[in-house]
Amino acid sequence: MPPAALWRTLRAHQVYGANTDVGKTIVSTLLCKALQPQGPVSFLKPVSTGPLDEADDRHIQRYAPHTRTQCLYQFDEPVSPHIAAHQPSQRTTSVPSVPSDRQLLDAIHQTLTSWAHPHQPAHALVETAGGVHSPGPNGTSQADLYRPLRLPIILIADARLGGISASIAAYESLQLRGYDVHSVLLFRDDYYQNHGYLHAYFAKKAIPLVAVPPPPPRPDPTDPDAARRDVEAMRRYYEHTVREGRLGSVVEALERKHVERWERLEAMAEKAHAMIWYPFTQHRGVAAQDINVIDSACGDYFQSYQRDTLEVREAASASASASALRATFDGSASWWTQGLGHGNPDLALSAAYAAGRYGHVMFPGNIHEPALALAETLLQSQGNPRLQRVFYTDNGSTGMEVAVKMGLRAACARYGWDASTEPIRILGLKGSYHGDTIGVMDCSEPSTYNKKVEWYRGRGHWFDFPQVSMKEGKWTISMPETALGAELQYGSLSEVFDLEARLHSEAGRRYRAYIHQTIQRLVQQEGVKFGALIMEPIILGAGGMLFCDPLFQRCLADVVRQHPELFGEQIAPQPSSPTGETEGNRDWSGLPIIFDEVFTGLYRLGRRSAASFLQVHPDISVHAKLLTGGLVPLCTTLASEEIFRAFLSAEKSDALLHGHSYTAHAVGCQVAVDSLQTMMRMDHEGSWQEYQNDWTIPTPTTETSVWSVWSHGLVRDLSHAASVEGVFALGTVLSIALKDQQGGGYTSTAAQGLQQRLAAGSEQFAVHSRVLGNVLYLMSSLTSQPGSLRGIEEVLRGELL
Amino acid sequence: MPPAALWRTLRAHQVYGANTDVGKTIVSTLLCKALQPQGPVSFLKPVSTGPLDEADDRHIQRYAPHTRTQCLYQFDEPVSPHIAAHQPSQRTTSVPSVPSDRQLLDAIHQTLTSWAHPHQPAHALVETAGGVHSPGPNGTSQADLYRPLRLPIILIADARLGGISASIAAYESLQLRGYDVHSVLLFRDDYYQNHGYLHAYFAKKAIPLVAVPPPPPRPDPTDPDAARRDVEAMRRYYEHTVREGRLGSVVEALERKHVERWERLEAMAEKAHAMIWYPFTQHRGVAAQDINVIDSACGDYFQSYQRDTLEVREAASASASASALRATFDGSASWWTQGLGHGNPDLALSAAYAAGRYGHVMFPGNIHEPALALAETLLQSQGNPRLQRVFYTDNGSTGMEVAVKMGLRAACARYGWDASTEPIRILGLKGSYHGDTIGVMDCSEPSTYNKKVEWYRGRGHWFDFPQVSMKEGKWTISMPETALGAELQYGSLSEVFDLEARLHSEAGRRYRAYIHQTIQRLVQQEGVKFGALIMEPIILGAGGMLFCDPLFQRCLADVVRQHPELFGEQIAPQPSSPTGETEGNRDWSGLPIIFDEVFTGLYRLGRRSAASFLQVHPDISVHAKLLTGGLVPLCTTLASEEIFRAFLSAEKSDALLHGHSYTAHAVGCQVAVDSLQTMMRMDHEGSWQEYQNDWTIPTPTTETSVWSVWSHGLVRDLSHAASVEGVFALGTVLSIALKDQQGGGYTSTAAQGLQQRLAAGSEQFAVHSRVLGNVLYLMSSLTSQPGSLRGIEEVLRGELL
Repeated sequence: MPPAALWRTLRAHQVYGANTDVGKTIVSTLLCKALQPQGPVSFLKPVSTGPLDEADDRHIQRYAPHTRTQCLYQFDEPVSPHIAAHQPSQRTTSVPSVPSDRQLLDAIHQTLTSWAHPHQPAHALVETAGGVHSPGPNGTSQADLYRPLRLPIILIADARLGGISASIAAYESLQLRGYDVHSVLLFRDDYYQNHGYLHAYFAKKAIPLVAVPPPPPRPDPTDPDAARRDVEAMRRYYEHTVREGRLGSVVEALERKHVERWERLEAMAEKAHAMIWYPFTQHRGVAAQDINVIDSACGDYFQSYQRDTLEVREAASASASASALRATFDGSASWWTQGLGHGNPDLALSAAYAAGRYGHVMFPGNIHEPALALAETLLQSQGNPRLQRVFYTDNGSTGMEVAVKMGLRAACARYGWDASTEPIRILGLKGSYHGDTIGVMDCSEPSTYNKKVEWYRGRGHWFDFPQVSMKEGKWTISMPETALGAELQYGSLSEVFDLEARLHSEAGRRYRAYIHQTIQRLVQQEGVKFGALIMEPIILGAGGMLFCDPLFQRCLADVVRQHPELFGEQIAPQPSSPTGETEGNRDWSGLPIIFDEVFTGLYRLGRRSAASFLQVHPDISVHAKLLTGGLVPLCTTLASEEIFRAFLSAEKSDALLHGHSYTAHAVGCQVAVDSLQTMMRMDHEGSWQEYQNDWTIPTPTTETSVWSVWSHGLVRDLSHAASVEGVFALGTVLSIALKDQQGGGYTSTAAQGLQQRLAAGSEQFAVHSRVLGNVLYLMSSLTSQPGSLRGIEEVLRGELL
Repeated sequence: MPPAALWRTLRAHQVYGANTDVGKTIVSTLLCKALQPQGPVSFLKPVSTGPLDEADDRHIQRYAPHTRTQCLYQFDEPVSPHIAAHQPSQRTTSVPSVPSDRQLLDAIHQTLTSWAHPHQPAHALVETAGGVHSPGPNGTSQADLYRPLRLPIILIADARLGGISASIAAYESLQLRGYDVHSVLLFRDDYYQNHGYLHAYFAKKAIPLVAVPPPPPRPDPTDPDAARRDVEAMRRYYEHTVREGRLGSVVEALERKHVERWERLEAMAEKAHAMIWYPFTQHRGVAAQDINVIDSACGDYFQSYQRDTLEVREAASASASASALRATFDGSASWWTQGLGHGNPDLALSAAYAAGRYGHVMFPGNIHEPALALAETLLQSQGNPRLQRVFYTDNGSTGMEVAVKMGLRAACARYGWDASTEPIRILGLKGSYHGDTIGVMDCSEPSTYNKKVEWYRGRGHWFDFPQVSMKEGKWTISMPETALGAELQYGSLSEVFDLEARLHSEAGRRYRAYIHQTIQRLVQQEGVKFGALIMEPIILGAGGMLFCDPLFQRCLADVVRQHPELFGEQIAPQPSSPTGETEGNRDWSGLPIIFDEVFTGLYRLGRRSAASFLQVHPDISVHAKLLTGGLVPLCTTLASEEIFRAFLSAEKSDALLHGHSYTAHAVGCQVAVDSLQTMMRMDHEGSWQEYQNDWTIPTPTTETSVWSVWSHGLVRDLSHAASVEGVFALGTVLSIALKDQQGGGYTSTAAQGLQQRLAAGSEQFAVHSRVLGNVLYLMSSLTSQPGSLRGIEEVLRGELL
């Protein structure tokens, strides 16, 4: 991924046409001439099709002679590049074969960088071929192909009949991809008057539009002197148009927008420092220069502004290549939300479609297609016959508040407890985290995250638990309590997940006994009333990327379901199947079981549901983050029909009285449907086969197959590193626990050095990561490219091995 | 607003061209011929430009002779309709002048309705002019102009050079407006091969594409027999192409999609009933047919599916006009979120731009333009120099959780309280509501909304307060306590808001004394510790649209700020200015004051801030709902620098440990910036002058001007109605309290009858409203049209007077 295109001195713009044949090259020629008084002007045609003597760079050379021109790839046929590039007569000027999209981007970036003088202002125009969506050599729409560079755009509008429509549609397609259009030009046509309409249209968007005189008509081709006459007429046209100052306001606007963009980028960190109150941030000690200015993002990469520090200035003096933006790998998957790449145009269009079709539809009493389609898709995706109802909220925290309200109500109703007079608690794991609202903070044990919140009152019991990580080449399960037995070791992660075998092991027996005894003591001796079992299956995220032994979580669910007598006086079903339901009976037993899959669900760990690793069907399941593929907040709380029925009564006030204004907002639901279906299709099509092959040890039990996008070899090698305490990878998650003399935990600073070194990166490339105490983790999206990930693995190896 | 276009038997499609001159009419002719075996086919050209003998409907008549054709408006000049319509030679076939957009829509809807047989399947094609964005007669882009009908679309793609780009861009512009494209057709061109590329492109979107043979070339115009030859060649072309079955798959696809759409609309309510757990809904007693199926929304109107009940069937038998969709006024502004109209294409594009530029950027440590721009815009908009910091969350409830965490921390720090050992409470008003998460539920007194939530524990003291409404033509302030004096009456709402005058009145004196005594008693006698004052300024929304006497809220803020000695031992500033700050000192005094403007802020009540009515500058202010103009969830908690400083320390754990995954998501921030700037521009441009004139009694104190989109005359007249207890309107809100023998309140059913009658509506038009106990309210957006609102007022008058 090259950095996006921005240099302090070079004013580079990309010229897009609203359609083919709208006069892009003529307008570019005018611009080259008009810009020349400002400094050197260069013209780059990345891909050109058609006979060489008509090529656009030749035209520029002829009529704007002081312009430096370059064409990277030239194809003979005057057709779209994706066809021309594969014609037998194809010929390229600089490399022998059709370039990949990445090669094309790199070549453009290198060329522009070579044109960026360290100090002298200069201009460059990068001209596209055809219209905005005309395909590049490999068939990618140019608007998508060139998006990683995100050059500011000069749009050449269409002056012909139909040109208003073509121009606005082209503009919308560019907007949809996050481009900024800095200027619009078109030929003046007094009959169709498109310039008048479009001027008013773009004025509302603060985009200047200039209508230039149309070029002279082509001379009669039967005239033997036509070629010479044409050249003379064009030369006069260019001279006259520029001399008359027809492009003065464009030149001024381009300069102004370039300067404004710079000034803004320079000022943003200071302004944010003065104005923004950041989440989970101790502001004391945070300086303005600690704040990263993100100019845009694409795929797995942020484009971060490189502040013009003294070092940067010196680097710029030393070489012309210092770019003002740097590609930074989004190694936290933007707080675990990112799934299908930043700036994904399909999701942008999904969002826009729902916005255009509905806006927002208030939800109670109404149904709309995106909300229903998402409910259907999600319920189907989970493969859990218990889950039959979908409740929508806005984020994991509110979805968990709903889950807790559901669980507590069901338990109190069954056991006849009056929650207004006696405290009802939840059963969970230490290190759990379910969100930042006070109600769900109460579901976690007192910790750094919550204990200073004035209204926090932890309401539960939390088990310490055995943790999995690779140490010195072995998958190791470390026990927190002697009652749970000695440390276990396995040769593969698949064995750790082979619950069928492990349930009957000594460890399984010890786990169940310990859990049973603990609950019995709390309930019978201490009189605690429990209303729900809450777990983050497999990995407890915010608590520190704690990889819980899946056998322990399975045993916890089994004990709760198989021993309802522990919790209250009732006659309850005693399910015998592993997932907890028997034929026709999906009622909860013991306690409602809530799985918080906000982080771990929906392919984050490589599977549609994290519950499937445990082969437990929860009664309530909460999903968010990846749900919308990394675009907008949305959360679903799925529940069984039996939980739902606990709220049915003749009283309105017995209903689940929860519901945010934007409940089931159409934009979020539509994006979620499209994200989920995309991920399910990738799964079905075997998009991750290469990763799976790397991790799979041939075994007949494919059900328990576990894999990661991070290579098995990296995990093994890191587990031997001197500074590494343990490491694991699962799905898109890589977690590295560093040794800490002070004992680790959230306040540890052991991982900060590594984090800072990754962030410092190289001149053009860095890695954003997050730490949780002594743990540094990296998280990819589901569309991350192996090449990209292996590059980051090399960086890690360089740092740690 | 006509209903959107859907009939059971009539398959109506709109034909859009990717550009002008792509062969729309030729393809339409092919389609008319190909569809004729399925039943009657009609062709509608709403607006045609160019010489009459070339008109598209004439072409259809000639080559697909059994087609019924109609052109509504014909203009001579072969230019865009917005120019042709204003040429001197313009002539129309059916009405004498240029139609308004609304007239055009009505005419199309009427024509199609007249073509809808009660039982016999039929087809209609509605052909547009030029490309998707070609302007209609009044300059509106066709894609916007025809959007209220939301006909399914047949897109004619462009087979020429550049046509791939034009076709995809046109498709994206249609998607952006929430249209469904049911089929794509284009001419086959084996040189450019656009059909191959586009086939693959649209296949990914499950949209069938058919390439039809290109029409024969036009004969040489010098041939005297050219016209006859052309007609013959075209006739052969049409016959041959249809006979060969080239359109068979399109005909099949159109039929299949029509049937699928119907089946889906028929099934959605049942499916939702089985699968969705609705917010704030007691599901017992809710039947599937109670659920409204919203097919789309546009402006102020939902398009609701009219279930095919027996009555509808009978209506359909009786007349051909029964449409399957009905326009329903969104009278709750979709739970108070709607501000700029459903399906607003500008906001859809804003959302798409941010999605395309960023996706989501994890927020801690980073800044991006939409988040910064929104912070700047919001702080500036509030005109409150205290507010200097912006904290982002996802909805009003989470934003209020943050506000409470802020306020409690600041108070505990100043007064030296240990909140882990002693309960800290908040001071508020009865009937307040701040959201559904448990922490902010605790900020409201026990009520129907919260008392059955298992973990709810009300933590506060809540004042009963004087309420404003118009009764029998007088603005009346009803007192809840004898200590507050007798009922007050005013001639105008402006007088109620004239706080400068009222502060020194007997009422002001009584209010202050009562508040002071109450707090003194609670703190000194009962030992209560208060951590914050929380108010919804002016109107308490969810609590029942309670209009609080602004003087009471003002006095509450004044007493808290002027008597810090009431709350704890400290030396605190004694502000003397009305807004509470003195030169250079913006520190809080007494208690941090939190304004929950989630509902009342950002022009909901006609002003940028609800606080401005009280002339109180809160220390913390929360905004959501209208913030994003009715599109996606987003919330901001604004705070003073002094509140911010209470969290600064050397300890990370002293930070405000709150932050959802999608904090400051770019899509929401961008939409909010554009919404807010749009509303501020409307304000600046005097867009609501007509409404303001209706309410203004000439007075020099424009500061206290109050107005509503609902007419003053309606409020006055309703206040005299026999069944009405009181009524008020402010900004976009109209609230009607109905008399209830049982005393009113949330469980009252007094307003349900009125609600049901409004919902029943007429055949083509209904009003969705919400009730809170005995109160029925209506809420418009800020772009609602006076004509539309007056129509609804007529319905109300009919029901209540």
